[in-house]
Amino acid sequence: MPIQAVDLAEKLAQFNEHWAPRTVAEFNGHDVMVVKFQGEYAWHSHADTDDFFLVIAGQILLDLKAAGTQDVSTVTLNAGQLYIVPQGVEHRPRAAQEAQVLLMERTGTPNSGDPATAAPRRVV
Amino acid sequence: MPIQAVDLAEKLAQFNEHWAPRTVAEFNGHDVMVVKFQGEYAWHSHADTDDFFLVIAGQILLDLKAAGTQDVSTVTLNAGQLYIVPQGVEHRPRAAQEAQVLLMERTGTPNSGDPATAAPRRVV
Repeated sequence: MPIQAVDLAEKLAQFNEHWAPRTVAEFNGHDVMVVKFQGEYAWHSHADTDDFFLVIAGQILLDLKAAGTQDVSTVTLNAGQLYIVPQGVEHRPRAAQEAQVLLMERTGTPNSGDPATAAPRRVV
Repeated sequence: MPIQAVDLAEKLAQFNEHWAPRTVAEFNGHDVMVVKFQGEYAWHSHADTDDFFLVIAGQILLDLKAAGTQDVSTVTLNAGQLYIVPQGVEHRPRAAQEAQVLLMERTGTPNSGDPATAAPRRVV
């Protein structure tokens, strides 16, 4: 059992890529990840997991599509704010400036919703 | 589907008690909670869930007992640091000064490890 706390800033300092989550801990079959957002990600959904977003620094937007429609709602999250995208809900993360995010999904979830385009799992 | 972000500081401003978690969101069958620690909690463990601690403000200590022994290790967590206590591991949270924590456990988990002494589930 490791007896060191996980320092999120220290983990975030280890990489610069955007949309490339790093796994920093495991929790009940989920990856606890840090990730940097900048620009606009692709619309996607996860059939098997809710998607947990907590902003550590900066601001992100989450575009959400209501089930069965093309209606888009947008949630704005600043540092210290979180949002859980329910399983199956189409969403598109965005950030005008670089933002740092704590992300949680079931281990094995493709971050893009599609194994073909997903970032590889990287543990730091 | 709610389209408001959850603001952790706003939720934490709604109560003053220590060791009395408030559920602010749900994630894959888990309660996402905010809680204020001050003083020393009881030793306990959770047979069915890992225990997620992320410090939002202040400092906490987690005493951990190695399986099958009385050896105690202590993890210190400051703001921006997290630690996952694995399922089944005896632990005792402490905080010399009031600290604010994001906590996650499976929904229905008694926070004290014992339904008889657990804080009631409260959603804010």
